Amino acid sequence: MKKTLFSLATTLLMNLPLTAAPLQHVEPPHWWVGMREPALQLMLHGPGVADARVALAPYPGVRLVGSHRADSPNYLFVDLDIGPEARPGELALSLDGGEPLRYPLRARAPGSAQRQGFGPRDAIYLVVPDRFAKGGSGRQDGLKEGVDRANPGGRHGGDLAGLRRHLGYIAGLGFTQLWPTPLVVNDSATYSYHGYAATDFYRVDPRFGSNDDFLALAAEARALGVGVIQDIVLNHIGAGHWWMADLPAPDWLNQWPQYTETHHARVTLQDPYAAPSDRKRFTDGWFTPHMPDLNQRRPELATYLTQMTLWWIETAGLSGIRTDTYSYSDRDFLTRWSARVMQEYPRLNIVGEEWSPHPAVVAYWQRGKRNHDGYASQAPSMMDFPMNTALLAALTEEDGPHTGLTKLYEGLAHDFVYPDPANLVLFDGNHDTPRLFSLMKRDVGLTKIALAYLATTRRIPQMFYGTEVLMESPVERDDGRVRADMPGGWPGDQASAFTGAGLTAEQRAMQDWVRRLFNWRKTTGVVHDGALMQYAPLEGCYVFFRYDARRTVMVALNKGGKTATLPTARFPERLRVGDHARDVMTGQAFEVGATVSVPARSPLILEISR
Amino acid sequence: MKKTLFSLATTLLMNLPLTAAPLQHVEPPHWWVGMREPALQLMLHGPGVADARVALAPYPGVRLVGSHRADSPNYLFVDLDIGPEARPGELALSLDGGEPLRYPLRARAPGSAQRQGFGPRDAIYLVVPDRFAKGGSGRQDGLKEGVDRANPGGRHGGDLAGLRRHLGYIAGLGFTQLWPTPLVVNDSATYSYHGYAATDFYRVDPRFGSNDDFLALAAEARALGVGVIQDIVLNHIGAGHWWMADLPAPDWLNQWPQYTETHHARVTLQDPYAAPSDRKRFTDGWFTPHMPDLNQRRPELATYLTQMTLWWIETAGLSGIRTDTYSYSDRDFLTRWSARVMQEYPRLNIVGEEWSPHPAVVAYWQRGKRNHDGYASQAPSMMDFPMNTALLAALTEEDGPHTGLTKLYEGLAHDFVYPDPANLVLFDGNHDTPRLFSLMKRDVGLTKIALAYLATTRRIPQMFYGTEVLMESPVERDDGRVRADMPGGWPGDQASAFTGAGLTAEQRAMQDWVRRLFNWRKTTGVVHDGALMQYAPLEGCYVFFRYDARRTVMVALNKGGKTATLPTARFPERLRVGDHARDVMTGQAFEVGATVSVPARSPLILEISR
Repeated sequence: MKKTLFSLATTLLMNLPLTAAPLQHVEPPHWWVGMREPALQLMLHGPGVADARVALAPYPGVRLVGSHRADSPNYLFVDLDIGPEARPGELALSLDGGEPLRYPLRARAPGSAQRQGFGPRDAIYLVVPDRFAKGGSGRQDGLKEGVDRANPGGRHGGDLAGLRRHLGYIAGLGFTQLWPTPLVVNDSATYSYHGYAATDFYRVDPRFGSNDDFLALAAEARALGVGVIQDIVLNHIGAGHWWMADLPAPDWLNQWPQYTETHHARVTLQDPYAAPSDRKRFTDGWFTPHMPDLNQRRPELATYLTQMTLWWIETAGLSGIRTDTYSYSDRDFLTRWSARVMQEYPRLNIVGEEWSPHPAVVAYWQRGKRNHDGYASQAPSMMDFPMNTALLAALTEEDGPHTGLTKLYEGLAHDFVYPDPANLVLFDGNHDTPRLFSLMKRDVGLTKIALAYLATTRRIPQMFYGTEVLMESPVERDDGRVRADMPGGWPGDQASAFTGAGLTAEQRAMQDWVRRLFNWRKTTGVVHDGALMQYAPLEGCYVFFRYDARRTVMVALNKGGKTATLPTARFPERLRVGDHARDVMTGQAFEVGATVSVPARSPLILEISR
Repeated sequence: MKKTLFSLATTLLMNLPLTAAPLQHVEPPHWWVGMREPALQLMLHGPGVADARVALAPYPGVRLVGSHRADSPNYLFVDLDIGPEARPGELALSLDGGEPLRYPLRARAPGSAQRQGFGPRDAIYLVVPDRFAKGGSGRQDGLKEGVDRANPGGRHGGDLAGLRRHLGYIAGLGFTQLWPTPLVVNDSATYSYHGYAATDFYRVDPRFGSNDDFLALAAEARALGVGVIQDIVLNHIGAGHWWMADLPAPDWLNQWPQYTETHHARVTLQDPYAAPSDRKRFTDGWFTPHMPDLNQRRPELATYLTQMTLWWIETAGLSGIRTDTYSYSDRDFLTRWSARVMQEYPRLNIVGEEWSPHPAVVAYWQRGKRNHDGYASQAPSMMDFPMNTALLAALTEEDGPHTGLTKLYEGLAHDFVYPDPANLVLFDGNHDTPRLFSLMKRDVGLTKIALAYLATTRRIPQMFYGTEVLMESPVERDDGRVRADMPGGWPGDQASAFTGAGLTAEQRAMQDWVRRLFNWRKTTGVVHDGALMQYAPLEGCYVFFRYDARRTVMVALNKGGKTATLPTARFPERLRVGDHARDVMTGQAFEVGATVSVPARSPLILEISR
């Protein structure tokens, strides 16, 4: 991402507009001129505001389209049209002739609409901000839950200041994108640290820092060549969201006669045989009793969620969106939402989370897929859970006709079901899955194979923070421990991933290896956009090539306990005796002979030239 | 199938044509007038015949198009055009002016072209003829391998006479189609019983009986309402095939500088990343050193295999073809072959074997699939290996988000990838897989669940002989023991599945249960062509319905060790309190209350009426 495009971002202040006295919320808090879509709908919230008459003071290019209420007397929706000729400034909206509400219309940052989103050139580093590093003094601001580092499910006090302090570390590892789990306010009494239960969509949790701190983080990251991906939840909110005290309308949420939880049967959406009641339960059932389920079929809510997404992209200069629990939202809304985002930012990226091991199910949600039922998604990317599942199985199962390494091979072959497989995000793990090193049974070699695959296959790689220092977890799901504190993130930590102090030799070696791997990837274009050719695994060894007219990279993954001796003749399309090879990880150069040796339980990455 | 259509079949004698003295083979041995496709290519084989001048004595409607040789001096290919006005009779073809070869042109059986192939109304019974029953005295006829019942991999002496004797048993079980593994000559010194290594495509192995015996079997089966599906191998032959002594041309086989075996990497055909050398190895590599791999890109061989298929369909009045190792043959040939078969018999069925657990891979081969690479298959059916894999896992794995019963549920949801899922053949097992009862760890309840699923889901069910009497095998692949002798098939057997003598009470009960199940299915149209609605599994219980405007069948599979109490309200679309239910397997009738009980580790099949 070009840092110049967004150099103004930190100067955009995010003061709430001057509200007429009784208004508690005006959202979005500001907007821009020059958006492709002229329509803007404001949500005004305050006692008795629903029936107020709205008037707009003359403003060139801006038109008041109308206003309407929902069920609650305390919400008013105001529709504006911001034409292409409108200039930055402040709208003056009066309610019942009172003191006008001043609403900011800003200028967009230069190049904003054409910003380049994350893509195959990038590598993404995922952090859980509460668990990464503490840098500030922490402001509780009346929120319910305080810090308790002894509680695996409690808040540990990591914040934006800590994350900003270690941006250089992340960039130095070779990553070019940062995905923090959600940062907006989650005001619940317990389990508030994870961020997936928003109680205010427009405000960074003060325990992490301020909105300005987030903008500063994004700007500093961009200066280091690192884009920021915001994690947004469209499906549900936290039970403490301010809406819950006074819902705009009863159908703002998916309501049930009695509490009904989703059964997570996501295939109901593809299944030609799904019972309608089952499909409804999947989409409209609640995620947990503490996460009220949003009804995106309610038009004002759909608009609210869409504008909120655009607001963060434009305000913080984001390079993309990660959408939590993607398929759990209304699917027609998802199409409109993603289409609108991509309409405003045609080169941005959105990656949806569809936690399914089935390529045909995940492919359903990727933009460009021709689906059996006519459904057309607009999300350019999806998280590659099928390949993550295959990768973990490949390295831990015994090899068989369809098990072990064959799962990796057959999994990649399934790319034919995707409209754009190179734009899927493949990960070693995330905040919901056990730690890679633990799943690999603490085998460094297997862990390296997994990361080498991530970095070289035809995907956007994403690594979970701490993998580089071999962080561990139980192998059954245990969120609090998977999201353990990054060593060195807290004052007094005995070991530090950031300085290397106190790390074991094994951790330091792994960290160096990861740094070398992703820095090499960063500058190796053929791994970003080259073609791929793969060979069926044989005897515990799986080989593929990335290549274009000028460059070739050979990747050999030897899972077995012995050196594999691969006949060069096995790869006639891509390798010849006499080719020059350079081992990317050791720097060692050699001439290719009749065979290529791959050390036991290791990846081998070779740059080949002729 | 209408028995009248084929009542003439047994009267069609299959004498070889009167060959000119030196000819050893004239194939196909006869042909028909009134085929949709007028072209017929004869293969003449005999010393020095390649350069003979051919002449056809005048025959109304028949034209000699030409003749040509291949590399061998001993093969001549003669192209004829048999126009629509040609009448049955004998062609007289002279070679170099000698005594004419008399070639029979027969009349087709009435309705032959429009015969109804097997389909969702049917249930298929698979037998390995060598292992099912011995009825004749056995003619070795100079073939290499004799009978040795003590050898699991040897011939056990089952034959067509034995199979004919027990057709009533098969029909009585409720099956309407019989699939015998291949019956043509397999003249190898060992391991000849399985039939998948043909040494003569046009002749039934005399150890099984004669071609006439096969026609008699087919006719008798039809008289009992049972169609016959012939198992044909297009990919390879046996090393003892008569071609091998004198190949028509070197490229008749897929030849390699040194012996090269297929690596079974069938996804090379779908994989956008497959190395061409890998794809070639899959298709052109040999199945075993004893099974030379046919090169169907050789036009005369392609024609030979196609005519051979049509010849058996027309001669024996078949209701379908099962094609072994489907994807291993040249895929463009497969399209032409299946298109030609379906052109001659538009309502026939062809089921291909693609041994993959991946729906997207199997779907690639079904007629009507729009493939990513433009490939268009013409085979109407495929063996449903993915669902067989899912079914076995569903009943043996612990239930999880994507394991156990969920595999069955999500597997069926994947029907969206198939153009015609109801026309897939789902099986409990076959001659290559361990026995169902053994895989179910000798649990009769789980075995019944598997069979109930087979009989009621949206598929064509196929059962392996002996499942009904709980035949067992090792759970790792062991062909000889999987294909064990059917009890009662041999004189002196202590127990008999056919008479019930000597069976355990458990075996008899299972056999009765299977008989009731498939006889019920036979007459229950809603299970053949009704819609299906399924519900996500909950607490070890999986429920789906087959239904149409008039009829409803509820199927509940309770895998758990306790009675499941299902709330009727869980199935609002298909079940109501007060509905009348009849338990198909016990005959018990009751009124549906607030819950429906499903006994522990059992299937429950209810006919529902209102």
